[in-house]
Amino acid sequence: MLKSVGYAAKAADKPLDTFQFERREVTPNDVQIEILYCGVCHSDLHQARDEWHNTIFPIVPGHEIVGKVTKVGDKVSKYKVGQTVGVGCMVDSCRTCSSCEEGLEQYCENGFVPTYNGEEKHIDGVTYGGYSDNIVVHEDFVLKVSDKLDLAGVAPLLCAGITTYSPLRHWGVGEGHKVGIVGLGGLGHMGVKLASAMGAKVVLFTTSPGKVEDAKRLGADEVVISKNEDEMKAHTNSFDFILNTVAAPHDLDAYMTLLKRDGSMTLVGVPAEPHPSPQIMNLIFKRRSLAGSLIGGIAETQEMLDFCAKHNITSDVEMIDMDYINEAYERMLKSDVKYRFVIDMASLKKGKDAA
Amino acid sequence: MLKSVGYAAKAADKPLDTFQFERREVTPNDVQIEILYCGVCHSDLHQARDEWHNTIFPIVPGHEIVGKVTKVGDKVSKYKVGQTVGVGCMVDSCRTCSSCEEGLEQYCENGFVPTYNGEEKHIDGVTYGGYSDNIVVHEDFVLKVSDKLDLAGVAPLLCAGITTYSPLRHWGVGEGHKVGIVGLGGLGHMGVKLASAMGAKVVLFTTSPGKVEDAKRLGADEVVISKNEDEMKAHTNSFDFILNTVAAPHDLDAYMTLLKRDGSMTLVGVPAEPHPSPQIMNLIFKRRSLAGSLIGGIAETQEMLDFCAKHNITSDVEMIDMDYINEAYERMLKSDVKYRFVIDMASLKKGKDAA
Repeated sequence: MLKSVGYAAKAADKPLDTFQFERREVTPNDVQIEILYCGVCHSDLHQARDEWHNTIFPIVPGHEIVGKVTKVGDKVSKYKVGQTVGVGCMVDSCRTCSSCEEGLEQYCENGFVPTYNGEEKHIDGVTYGGYSDNIVVHEDFVLKVSDKLDLAGVAPLLCAGITTYSPLRHWGVGEGHKVGIVGLGGLGHMGVKLASAMGAKVVLFTTSPGKVEDAKRLGADEVVISKNEDEMKAHTNSFDFILNTVAAPHDLDAYMTLLKRDGSMTLVGVPAEPHPSPQIMNLIFKRRSLAGSLIGGIAETQEMLDFCAKHNITSDVEMIDMDYINEAYERMLKSDVKYRFVIDMASLKKGKDAA
Repeated sequence: MLKSVGYAAKAADKPLDTFQFERREVTPNDVQIEILYCGVCHSDLHQARDEWHNTIFPIVPGHEIVGKVTKVGDKVSKYKVGQTVGVGCMVDSCRTCSSCEEGLEQYCENGFVPTYNGEEKHIDGVTYGGYSDNIVVHEDFVLKVSDKLDLAGVAPLLCAGITTYSPLRHWGVGEGHKVGIVGLGGLGHMGVKLASAMGAKVVLFTTSPGKVEDAKRLGADEVVISKNEDEMKAHTNSFDFILNTVAAPHDLDAYMTLLKRDGSMTLVGVPAEPHPSPQIMNLIFKRRSLAGSLIGGIAETQEMLDFCAKHNITSDVEMIDMDYINEAYERMLKSDVKYRFVIDMASLKKGKDAA
């Protein structure tokens, strides 16, 4: 077994702290990765605190992983030692259902294996995520990462990036389109960068007047303060597509009415309480759609990483040490981060050396 | 001016009764039609009783019209006297907006001219519908009707038929698809017939066990009693498309969860009170869509009528005399009709002769 060290929550009401654990040794198709950076996603916090009521403790969160290959199994053909790679939200899937066969492992009919808090079948255990010094993953769920990019800024692409890239691609966003991005957080700021790089005219919706300049710097052509009814009305019937990254319950109709005929609004956040019920009339009279989208498949994640390398896109990050994670969670709850915390895993080693 | 007689509501709380009025004489592009049959749509009742708060009284409802051409303007090229024709929910539109240019007049950006309770620009008046002996309509909004079909059964195709045909076509329903139709009323029974003729496997959802045999007769391959949770669950993740014709507020999630990945449910009824708010999780985890659709364009309505002629499809109707309309409305409120009332306009003439 491979000795590992990381940070884990040992119970829903406990802060994260150092945790020693074991991973499987590389099997023939596995890649062993020394983790350099791991992004901090809001779902890490949800699960560390058992807010989805399915957490197996202790939990090692983290599914925005960038690192270096340190070992490969006999049959690994895609990766070699020393290569820079990434791991996202999934480390396996059934590989046989129609969704897996179409390269849409995120919709695996039998449920994909999440990077943490999932079933580790090889050792009859639980999967542990990226808040740790290493990880062992089947090569089919490992992504190639360009060394041209700032690697800390790449980490959030593995979840925030693909979660916004996939719906933008699926709904055909490109040149000549007017696209709305609702919310400027970890997901929203990636949505702005990606939609802009795809050639769309991008309008960012935010409740915070303080974010206007920053949104423009990130690539938004226009910023609308969503509390301002007149500003909102000026965009009625004008959007081809709206990507809504806000999970907090809010009035969806305020955005549905901004879509053109045949426009879609896609949500990527699950609200804890339902949104106010949308008015069906707003769907019917313009043949509009309200949809949802979940991360992205492995092939599409690679496509996204290649797209980001080509367009020099990374996440705007605030680098933190591993032992800052509990404070980072508190700040994340107040949206006090521009726009993603990324853990420098060298800090874990420093901590270990000091201990 | 063309003297006409029909049935009108003179106020929201008054029953419909005989009404003498005038229509414009045919202008160069107009077709004058002697109305033979007019279907009775639920929206007739809504507007006769001013439930949408926009009724101009007196109102002559009716937008499922079949008749014979009795006169044509000088420049009419598509129709001649004696031909069997239809008129649906629209009698004009702006003809210049992007929706009109794409043949989607129902989504006219400037608002189409409804067949009744709309603006009659030629005579600075109000449009009067099909509960009358004749109508004058621009030839571009007149449809060709095959004499092979039972003409009384054709009348409801002009609204109930196109309202179900258009979303089935837009969402690509065909061979190899599993399609759900929710509700077996005027719209739902057309949905079953049309989806079946398109080659789909059709499952009808109803709350009424008494409708099972009839649904199968109409073309449903299977009927599910939607109150039965086990019957519903057996269809989880299996539908390509669901056409929901029920306007009464109900649990949309019960149907959303029956859609496959990338499946859509399209609503064609506007509820008076909102449906319970749908769970966004059900959209996200399978990339499902909730959409709406409004009647259909003129070209598509002609396509639908031709499709129905080819497949020998008409509406199941109960023929009534004009003076039965107020009782018909009461029965319609109790869903006591299989599946559409159609007024035999000869009865109006008989009434006039007797008077």
